[in-house]
Amino acid sequence: MKASQFFISTLKEAPADAEIVSHKLMMRAGMIKRLGAGLYNYMPMGLRVIRKVEHIIRSEMDRAGAVELLMPVVQPAELWQETGRFEKMGPELLRVKDRHGRDFIIQPTSEEVVTDIARQELRSYKQLPKNFYHIQTKFRDERRPRFGVMRGREFTMKDAYSFDRDVASAGRSYENMYGAYCKIFDRLGLQYRAVAADTGAIGGDRSHEFQVIADTGEDAIIYCPTSDYAANIELAEALALLPSRGAATQPLTKTPTPGKSTCADVAELLKLDLTQTVKSLVLATDELNEQGEVVKSQVWLLLVRGDHDLNEVKAGKLDGLKGGFRFATVGEIEAHFGCKPGYLGPIGLKAPLKIVADRTVANMADFVCGANEPDFHFTGVNWGRDLPEPDLVADIRNVVAGDPSPDGKGVLAIQRGIEVGHVFYLGTKYSAAMNATYLDETGKPQLMEMGCYGIGVTRILGAAIEQNHDERGIIWPDSIAPFTVVVCPIGMDRSEAVKDAATQLHQDLQALGIDVLLDDRGERPGAMFADWELVGVPHRVVISDRGLKEGQVEYQGRRDTEATKLALADVVAHLKQRLK
Amino acid sequence: MKASQFFISTLKEAPADAEIVSHKLMMRAGMIKRLGAGLYNYMPMGLRVIRKVEHIIRSEMDRAGAVELLMPVVQPAELWQETGRFEKMGPELLRVKDRHGRDFIIQPTSEEVVTDIARQELRSYKQLPKNFYHIQTKFRDERRPRFGVMRGREFTMKDAYSFDRDVASAGRSYENMYGAYCKIFDRLGLQYRAVAADTGAIGGDRSHEFQVIADTGEDAIIYCPTSDYAANIELAEALALLPSRGAATQPLTKTPTPGKSTCADVAELLKLDLTQTVKSLVLATDELNEQGEVVKSQVWLLLVRGDHDLNEVKAGKLDGLKGGFRFATVGEIEAHFGCKPGYLGPIGLKAPLKIVADRTVANMADFVCGANEPDFHFTGVNWGRDLPEPDLVADIRNVVAGDPSPDGKGVLAIQRGIEVGHVFYLGTKYSAAMNATYLDETGKPQLMEMGCYGIGVTRILGAAIEQNHDERGIIWPDSIAPFTVVVCPIGMDRSEAVKDAATQLHQDLQALGIDVLLDDRGERPGAMFADWELVGVPHRVVISDRGLKEGQVEYQGRRDTEATKLALADVVAHLKQRLK
Repeated sequence: MKASQFFISTLKEAPADAEIVSHKLMMRAGMIKRLGAGLYNYMPMGLRVIRKVEHIIRSEMDRAGAVELLMPVVQPAELWQETGRFEKMGPELLRVKDRHGRDFIIQPTSEEVVTDIARQELRSYKQLPKNFYHIQTKFRDERRPRFGVMRGREFTMKDAYSFDRDVASAGRSYENMYGAYCKIFDRLGLQYRAVAADTGAIGGDRSHEFQVIADTGEDAIIYCPTSDYAANIELAEALALLPSRGAATQPLTKTPTPGKSTCADVAELLKLDLTQTVKSLVLATDELNEQGEVVKSQVWLLLVRGDHDLNEVKAGKLDGLKGGFRFATVGEIEAHFGCKPGYLGPIGLKAPLKIVADRTVANMADFVCGANEPDFHFTGVNWGRDLPEPDLVADIRNVVAGDPSPDGKGVLAIQRGIEVGHVFYLGTKYSAAMNATYLDETGKPQLMEMGCYGIGVTRILGAAIEQNHDERGIIWPDSIAPFTVVVCPIGMDRSEAVKDAATQLHQDLQALGIDVLLDDRGERPGAMFADWELVGVPHRVVISDRGLKEGQVEYQGRRDTEATKLALADVVAHLKQRLK
Repeated sequence: MKASQFFISTLKEAPADAEIVSHKLMMRAGMIKRLGAGLYNYMPMGLRVIRKVEHIIRSEMDRAGAVELLMPVVQPAELWQETGRFEKMGPELLRVKDRHGRDFIIQPTSEEVVTDIARQELRSYKQLPKNFYHIQTKFRDERRPRFGVMRGREFTMKDAYSFDRDVASAGRSYENMYGAYCKIFDRLGLQYRAVAADTGAIGGDRSHEFQVIADTGEDAIIYCPTSDYAANIELAEALALLPSRGAATQPLTKTPTPGKSTCADVAELLKLDLTQTVKSLVLATDELNEQGEVVKSQVWLLLVRGDHDLNEVKAGKLDGLKGGFRFATVGEIEAHFGCKPGYLGPIGLKAPLKIVADRTVANMADFVCGANEPDFHFTGVNWGRDLPEPDLVADIRNVVAGDPSPDGKGVLAIQRGIEVGHVFYLGTKYSAAMNATYLDETGKPQLMEMGCYGIGVTRILGAAIEQNHDERGIIWPDSIAPFTVVVCPIGMDRSEAVKDAATQLHQDLQALGIDVLLDDRGERPGAMFADWELVGVPHRVVISDRGLKEGQVEYQGRRDTEATKLALADVVAHLKQRLK
């Protein structure tokens, strides 16, 4: 490709609405162009990256035995009503009426349509397992689209759906996709981690997020550097930090703590370690009648150590809280504690409630908690002596760095990540709702076991840049760079030698199947180099008259701090070696 | 590819709603699956064809210097309001409101968005010409979607848009695209014709439709077999069939024609040739005030020969009719002719109107027309003698087969065609509406000259099948077949020799880059052959134990009436030769 036949549009400054580095750099490098809130034109430079990402995904999906099809962007509401998602999904689901007033949706995913295909096409156990995928435009009407392609409204997604005869086979399909995803992200050249994730109402342990490691990531990834344990923060198990409960050594003492309503302030005032304090969180659950009116509420007190945070996903899995919970109202708190928030604790309650202690809290002795009286805390609190044992002991907190790994093989660490893929065992959630059955060997209909597997194609661009950039611009991995090599001739219009050498090198690299761009725009060297460093082409060859006089050209990798002089005759071999 | 890793789903019968052969065969071959009215899932077999079509289009567009980008499916209404299309387009334009109540549309084409890009990105004459294209999902909310992919609601289209500094340069861009389209349709392996088409309000002569020749096509293509003249029926020029007007030889005679209200009936009754009769068509134009109310109407009488049909597009270009016309009401007809339709003619009018005679009618003598009295016609009618010369003589009829070619090089013929591509010079229609200017050499802003160039990607599948099928199924051209070669082993599960030979042949062909499918499903020969004839794979190799004993396999091209025996050792060379 020659630059003169392409479209290059770089900016010195990013627009003001670009908040994060990948958004800024994609705008500056002319990869995307804003059309509206969360809507982007993928400009020629960006589209080349998308196509390379798609190609890698497609080839590994095919190799894994998945079969590509294409489901429509505009989908009839009827199917979405069968699963209840037409009603259940919030305003993120873009709904539209056609000229006859019939309801349609713009697809955010395709579970309903693919299950409709499966229930018609996959009739017999002999046709299973089957995995259908497509790479298609998606739309999610985000309330606050931002961060460029990271949280856009229209985006490209690869979504795959597996259909199996039983749970064991579905497990193999899941593992197969997990393996394919590893190959995909390896080939994309990204540092990533597959982390166990919550399966919500589906249950089971088969849900993994593929997270691209980046300090700017929205997600916390928990992992053990000395084992293969990795999970997202919602799921990562927090063990008790105290192996057993110590004996009481202090008397229960009501201590004045005027104005100190947080554990940190109390610990500082009392010159205690924050790990001696206990935090009280008050939740409530409601029992509804058929009309959806609240007929009864139950208040819950959840206790975590002062330096820990409540994990709401874990709390939501407890018996009694599974059906959904909310934070208690000030009225409910006053009725149960006789006190406003800030000085709450489990001792001397006005009305009965359920107490859940985190595993660590349940083993604490001589701890500090609120006294249910403004400006007072208890110190020297001990289970059994000062208050009854908790109703329930459970893992209800987020892990923190330094926690023991749940596999017993080390200590947990935390990284930031950007979720770019997700593999998920669906069970019969959709097949049951849509009666997607196959006939087994005995001719009996059985529900299909399903899995779904997504990759955010356009989001990968943003994640790759968050992970790979410097002050000069993007640094693309070789496999997804818009061009792998750029040949920059200096003074091509003045020097036949430069022109000939550049043209020949361009041809030679093309002949080897290397994706090379010849910058024949005639820009000055500084502007030309700045453009390609911003765009992030990983390999650059500079050809100048001065160099050619010594038979030399300059090679510089995008991460190299300086250029390497190479004999013109050696540059092709050198690049072949680098691109291996 | 092995069949066991793919998804094959064929049907003996097409669903009842499939009206045309391509729709029936695509459904039966498992290429598409209906999701809703005008909405289809592209199943794996169909998607392979689409990808091959897209690949050919993309490579020729790139070669022609066009640059690919990707514009969103969901587009803000604001841009469509700038050109007025948001209001002007009918219910085919799918409109949608987002969660904030803002208006969006689902793109049917992308003139507005690409012009918005151009007015921001193409600032200088140095950046012109430029041609941007994308291959993207489109939606047109057809009132009556039908014929499968031929008139669906959601479809894939390649749309390109050129931007030039002046009319001459725009003409070169147009010719460039015209040439690229010829290469594309050549490579697609389709018989097609590029026909001149009407440019409507844009004017000029730069609009061509690319029509795939098929007897079942909706469009009439006019061409001259002895020259390169070709146009669609809306545009094709009809010359006067009489070089000059003959002298009057008959008296004007009012003749009873009871119940004979058509030219054909009158000619039969009077034992005259239909070419002696003249047909009267009554149109009306309205003058509106600022409130859009009709303040004045004008009635027009258009005369074409009895065996000819009015061409409304041509009529719509006449001075006075350009602003739009309608057929006259019965009231208007009675007021001007004193007679109901069926016996109308230009003699003895009650009120003045404008008379337009087709070129041929203007040269007729001794003709027959209605007498403006029920059950009576005039015979022996002659211009000048019996009625004044027409107000206007013009080409207002459709050409018919046998007409002289307008280039004087032969006689016109008519074929049926399916429009799959269109190249169109837009002028400054969109750039003026959206103020898309560039700075010329003197720094003065100038409107960009535009062209648009569409290819109906998914429609090509239907058109290719309408052109290439037989009673057994589809016959794909090599270049877009879902698989180029199918290897059919007979009794692969029983015979190691068959299995080895088939597997080896599959590998050898794959190694040559030939898109081959090994049918390892274990189907019986009859069912297997029927499937591949239905699907339309152009080349088939059958491997059987009996054949192998003689060292032979059977090759059959999809159009061949019988198989050819080949030595197993020669089959690769034979296929290489066939696929050249």
